[in-house]
Amino acid sequence: MINKTVSNRPRAREIGLQIGKLPPAEFNAITDVEGVLIGHTTLIEGHGALEIGKGPIRTGVTAILPHPRNLIDEPVEAAHFVFNGAGTTSGLSLIDEFGQIETPILLTNTFSVGAVYDGVTRYLIKTAFDEGRNPRWFNPTVGETYDGGLNDAAGLHIKAEHVFAAIENARSGNVAEGNVGAGTGTSACGFKAGIGTSSRCVEIGGKTWTVGALVQSNFGGELIIDGVPIGELLTDRASAEDSASDQIDGSIMVILATDAPLSSRQLHRLAKRGTFGLARTGSNGGHGSGDYFIAFSTSYRQCIGAGKTAEMATFVQNESRLNPLFCAVADAVEEAILNSIFRAETMTGRDGRTVPALPMDAVIEILRTHGKCWHETQPVSC
Amino acid sequence: MINKTVSNRPRAREIGLQIGKLPPAEFNAITDVEGVLIGHTTLIEGHGALEIGKGPIRTGVTAILPHPRNLIDEPVEAAHFVFNGAGTTSGLSLIDEFGQIETPILLTNTFSVGAVYDGVTRYLIKTAFDEGRNPRWFNPTVGETYDGGLNDAAGLHIKAEHVFAAIENARSGNVAEGNVGAGTGTSACGFKAGIGTSSRCVEIGGKTWTVGALVQSNFGGELIIDGVPIGELLTDRASAEDSASDQIDGSIMVILATDAPLSSRQLHRLAKRGTFGLARTGSNGGHGSGDYFIAFSTSYRQCIGAGKTAEMATFVQNESRLNPLFCAVADAVEEAILNSIFRAETMTGRDGRTVPALPMDAVIEILRTHGKCWHETQPVSC
Amino acid sequence: MINKTVSNRPRAREIGLQIGKLPPAEFNAITDVEGVLIGHTTLIEGHGALEIGKGPIRTGVTAILPHPRNLIDEPVEAAHFVFNGAGTTSGLSLIDEFGQIETPILLTNTFSVGAVYDGVTRYLIKTAFDEGRNPRWFNPTVGETYDGGLNDAAGLHIKAEHVFAAIENARSGNVAEGNVGAGTGTSACGFKAGIGTSSRCVEIGGKTWTVGALVQSNFGGELIIDGVPIGELLTDRASAEDSASDQIDGSIMVILATDAPLSSRQLHRLAKRGTFGLARTGSNGGHGSGDYFIAFSTSYRQCIGAGKTAEMATFVQNESRLNPLFCAVADAVEEAILNSIFRAETMTGRDGRTVPALPMDAVIEILRTHGKCWHETQPVSC
Amino acid sequence: MINKTVSNRPRAREIGLQIGKLPPAEFNAITDVEGVLIGHTTLIEGHGALEIGKGPIRTGVTAILPHPRNLIDEPVEAAHFVFNGAGTTSGLSLIDEFGQIETPILLTNTFSVGAVYDGVTRYLIKTAFDEGRNPRWFNPTVGETYDGGLNDAAGLHIKAEHVFAAIENARSGNVAEGNVGAGTGTSACGFKAGIGTSSRCVEIGGKTWTVGALVQSNFGGELIIDGVPIGELLTDRASAEDSASDQIDGSIMVILATDAPLSSRQLHRLAKRGTFGLARTGSNGGHGSGDYFIAFSTSYRQCIGAGKTAEMATFVQNESRLNPLFCAVADAVEEAILNSIFRAETMTGRDGRTVPALPMDAVIEILRTHGKCWHETQPVSC
Repeated sequence: MINKTVSNRPRAREIGLQIGKLPPAEFNAITDVEGVLIGHTTLIEGHGALEIGKGPIRTGVTAILPHPRNLIDEPVEAAHFVFNGAGTTSGLSLIDEFGQIETPILLTNTFSVGAVYDGVTRYLIKTAFDEGRNPRWFNPTVGETYDGGLNDAAGLHIKAEHVFAAIENARSGNVAEGNVGAGTGTSACGFKAGIGTSSRCVEIGGKTWTVGALVQSNFGGELIIDGVPIGELLTDRASAEDSASDQIDGSIMVILATDAPLSSRQLHRLAKRGTFGLARTGSNGGHGSGDYFIAFSTSYRQCIGAGKTAEMATFVQNESRLNPLFCAVADAVEEAILNSIFRAETMTGRDGRTVPALPMDAVIEILRTHGKCWHETQPVSC
Repeated sequence: MINKTVSNRPRAREIGLQIGKLPPAEFNAITDVEGVLIGHTTLIEGHGALEIGKGPIRTGVTAILPHPRNLIDEPVEAAHFVFNGAGTTSGLSLIDEFGQIETPILLTNTFSVGAVYDGVTRYLIKTAFDEGRNPRWFNPTVGETYDGGLNDAAGLHIKAEHVFAAIENARSGNVAEGNVGAGTGTSACGFKAGIGTSSRCVEIGGKTWTVGALVQSNFGGELIIDGVPIGELLTDRASAEDSASDQIDGSIMVILATDAPLSSRQLHRLAKRGTFGLARTGSNGGHGSGDYFIAFSTSYRQCIGAGKTAEMATFVQNESRLNPLFCAVADAVEEAILNSIFRAETMTGRDGRTVPALPMDAVIEILRTHGKCWHETQPVSC
Repeated sequence: MINKTVSNRPRAREIGLQIGKLPPAEFNAITDVEGVLIGHTTLIEGHGALEIGKGPIRTGVTAILPHPRNLIDEPVEAAHFVFNGAGTTSGLSLIDEFGQIETPILLTNTFSVGAVYDGVTRYLIKTAFDEGRNPRWFNPTVGETYDGGLNDAAGLHIKAEHVFAAIENARSGNVAEGNVGAGTGTSACGFKAGIGTSSRCVEIGGKTWTVGALVQSNFGGELIIDGVPIGELLTDRASAEDSASDQIDGSIMVILATDAPLSSRQLHRLAKRGTFGLARTGSNGGHGSGDYFIAFSTSYRQCIGAGKTAEMATFVQNESRLNPLFCAVADAVEEAILNSIFRAETMTGRDGRTVPALPMDAVIEILRTHGKCWHETQPVSC
Repeated sequence: MINKTVSNRPRAREIGLQIGKLPPAEFNAITDVEGVLIGHTTLIEGHGALEIGKGPIRTGVTAILPHPRNLIDEPVEAAHFVFNGAGTTSGLSLIDEFGQIETPILLTNTFSVGAVYDGVTRYLIKTAFDEGRNPRWFNPTVGETYDGGLNDAAGLHIKAEHVFAAIENARSGNVAEGNVGAGTGTSACGFKAGIGTSSRCVEIGGKTWTVGALVQSNFGGELIIDGVPIGELLTDRASAEDSASDQIDGSIMVILATDAPLSSRQLHRLAKRGTFGLARTGSNGGHGSGDYFIAFSTSYRQCIGAGKTAEMATFVQNESRLNPLFCAVADAVEEAILNSIFRAETMTGRDGRTVPALPMDAVIEILRTHGKCWHETQPVSC
């Protein structure tokens, strides 16, 4: 089990890109929403020909904890939007019905949803017993995309222990991106992709709220970076090492967090705006691309968890004041997707199949000719 | 592993009840829809005090196979309706998006969804390899209700082998009801319940179509039998052995099958009508009752599977001709629920907790005073 | 224009029926929810052969005002559930998106939706100008069922003035039922029906909340009264004057009000439970029956309207405490439907077509043999 | 009543832009889908101060006829997607339930939905009588956006005669764009906008299918043209006459037509992809922007209408073959929006308020510096 990968590749903002006008928060990550923790278990083992059950293994698990405490006691207000249901995410009907998420959110590969669901079930039962009580029923949220292009997916290498590790290793602060966790074996628009994250600060009525996005990107299309059709332009350059392989299908899991005290209905509105970020990176919205957006609010919970009457934010009196949050979601998702690709290194997996990293030198050169890099007016983080 | 239970208790129709005016088909079971197979794995082990991981065990798995062949190659048109999303059923977004089910449908207990999802994943991967090809991605449909009142639910006793057994033992013809499979440890309206099934024949335009329902009943409320408030009347009799324990919450999984060539949109309309049957048995529609209705058509698939252009039924030209199918669904669900309770025997589970069977003698006496049993005009099966 | 009809026929509770165990409030009407006002405009003119544009006219408008003040300034939290979308109700997408209703709710006949929408638009524009300001945009909620069996529906007899009258005549207290307002020309299960209402009191955590239902009933099926299949039994009696004409299709509009401080998500859950009441009255859920359930909370608004931070009810911390409200909805809808039929008198309309009233003497006789009338333990109103 | 406006302004493709890689069809309009007819009624009257009921009038009606025959007899398969329900479109529940549209689709301004609903009701009743039969019930599809920024919206200037005119004047071939019909008084991203249209040809399995889009654009955001942030760059130029006024809110109605034989479920998938086109033009997805996407198939109907068994397209056997249609939708919507702005001339309305046209010279200059105009490889129409 390899828990860390180090990528020396830049994030989108490090080459001067800025998506939208709102500033990112401290880590430009979903962990900028106070309390949110991210943990990865990354499995990279073996090389060469695929031998089912033996490898090569290129997969993992990513855990998103809305806060560090017991989620069954303190569920977070939540919602989801399914742009394309060509995949599976367990727990969505509970989110619809109760407007809450009551477990950690887990991401993994398609065939390991059962193992991860079982793993998080075991983790929560164990946690309950450790706290000296019987567990009540719960319904975990487990999402996936398919990494069988590089990974021995049918080998079912994810075990309960990997789920425990991802949850227990979850941390605030900087988030590992690219070929880590559930993104270890994924790709997007023909380039190696994986996990990416970003955040935005929004001021409403004198208060500052944070929106964070984390993606497991694995979708098809032709990559667009800040409006520039990089996928098409790289193909025009016709250099073999630069061009992406054809990628028609795929999927994306998008997790959105905010400390703004929003109801599930309002979070559903936020989740929908995530599709704008996806559209702007060039997704083709393909038939087989399961595109799921899950949003939760950390702040709203605190009112409920504290045994007090729940308070909804003052700004719901004029819900048009949500507009900056809507823009923040679209922009953070767009940048999180870019980061998931920027940070991912070339990977060779099963049967020697290689998915190339985005060729940064060529990309920067193209972006410069479009006036895109190194804006002088980059907003500092809020 | 105990795969069979024999119940000597009567089905609803055997004491003269008839729900609605439409006749049942040969077995009065979901298997009357040609091709549909049902398999149960029933786990009943141990007695006495709950010892997590050791038992007592009162649980199981039920497999519904829409047809005997490979479902990934020949998916069936399908739809669902969630009356109350307070539970989990995996695979619903795929049903929405593709209008299809492409795997066996599995039912189990709440905490074993992960194990059963993993089990069916393993089964389908194995099947693919047995057929000499790599599996493509798929998204199983796994539903649940909570049986922790009798079962060592947190002991996680369901394993992949139990899923394999339920699928491999699936049969046409008579269906075991009551304390079997996923219904082994469930109860409804304070009485022991479990698996129940029923069917109806419908004639539209000179052709006969069959509708079948199978339920895993576990919901709260006061039992109503064919309009008679049995739950309330038994309580009024105040005899301890007759009265049900309080049951506020619970859940129900309802699977509907038909050979009528319906589109997913039309099947969604059918699924919704299932709630009428649930309402008429006295469900209180409680907060925590995850009530899921899944409907599929076996006939529609055949057109697609055969590589031909899909044909939709002629009667879609006047969709009001679906009305008899709507009634058939409501009636079959109502009777399937009654059968799930009628056929279930008293069970004692963890910590000596006992859920009584419906007291048939008292029930028959009450029904007779309401003129309900032994109608002279029972329709013979079609 | 005839604004009042007087019916001497009894309400369901006046012959001793009681639906469920919860007590009704003072008027056993939707107006028991404080602030709710109901107004009817009833158009009954002409006899004999249908002459399009001249009559006979048997139609009307019913206005439901969630509270007496300006709804655009003080919208009420709201939700809806469409059991069968075979009809039209304008404004549903706004209810979904904002979780609010911001106008009076109007009911009418199918072909007059445009006229009523235009009428309420004119009313709200006029109201704004009367208050000395420009109107901002709004989206009225207008529902319908089809009354063309008795009414010169294609004659389009509803005008803006009838909408104004219904809104301006809206009152609290007793609600006219049967052949009034939007129910003037409707029928259900083959009997004359129309407007009906009922209410329930629920105690949660030491506080009493009220739930009210108002229906415009026009649906097909075989009438069931408190579990007794009256429709079928009357047919068996084979007396011409008692038996209902065949009614396969139709529709129902159900409006639910409560003073419980519920969010739109919770109100959606309430709205769904209304279908249980519909099922229990014998609806066949027919293809062409547009069955719409709209729920609003009067209490929740007050927090928003007062410029304060909105407060959600304490009981959302344990949403299972909503259960009594769920039962209240199912029961109030069932009783409101019965009242809509009980109170409606035989009506002869276009081309001399007659829809018979429910034959009360025969019904009471049948109910007595089932032990249904004059319970000794009727709950007094709360 | 002014029925025609002539705009000398170029369409997007006439300055060399090409959105995506698929070619447009003959007219690059929704009318390229055989049978589709578009009719506008444009009302432009008066100048100066707003006098409610007198003007100035800047509004209209646009009619989309899926085919020239009676739609009640030959409804078209249809679906919708609501990205943001902050508006009203009547008839959506029927589209969901029956998967069909059975009337012309009408677009107008927010306050005139009632008048237009009434107008189309009158039109369809008249049509039925003209054909010598009684009308059965129907539910029209009427959408809207708010044009009160320029128009005397509260003056309610749209009458039934304007609806009749739009329907009766509906034509195939070239479609008037910009300040016509329902787009007469609308604006987008701070520039004058209105009606726009575009089409794409797609080859699947040796057959060519057409997708057409028509928009009534009225949304907020910062305009993006083919990836270039024109709104932001024009603002940077700081020339008063170029810069758009602030536009935060608004709405958009998008109508999609295709001759591909798709089911309502598949059309729903198409409709969702329309949001990608909206995202790429810079919409901010604002709180008050009612964004509705309605899609219909002309081909599917023909099977039903002819009294034959309906045939679904062969390519549903492998629904991934829909991918080119998904791209076609996103691209056609994006280009239709651009055309709605490109073709709209500066308009001065109520109280002398002026919304500027997009400054084409400045835009072309900016686009050229981004290498966007006059591609040499423009696809000819298919």
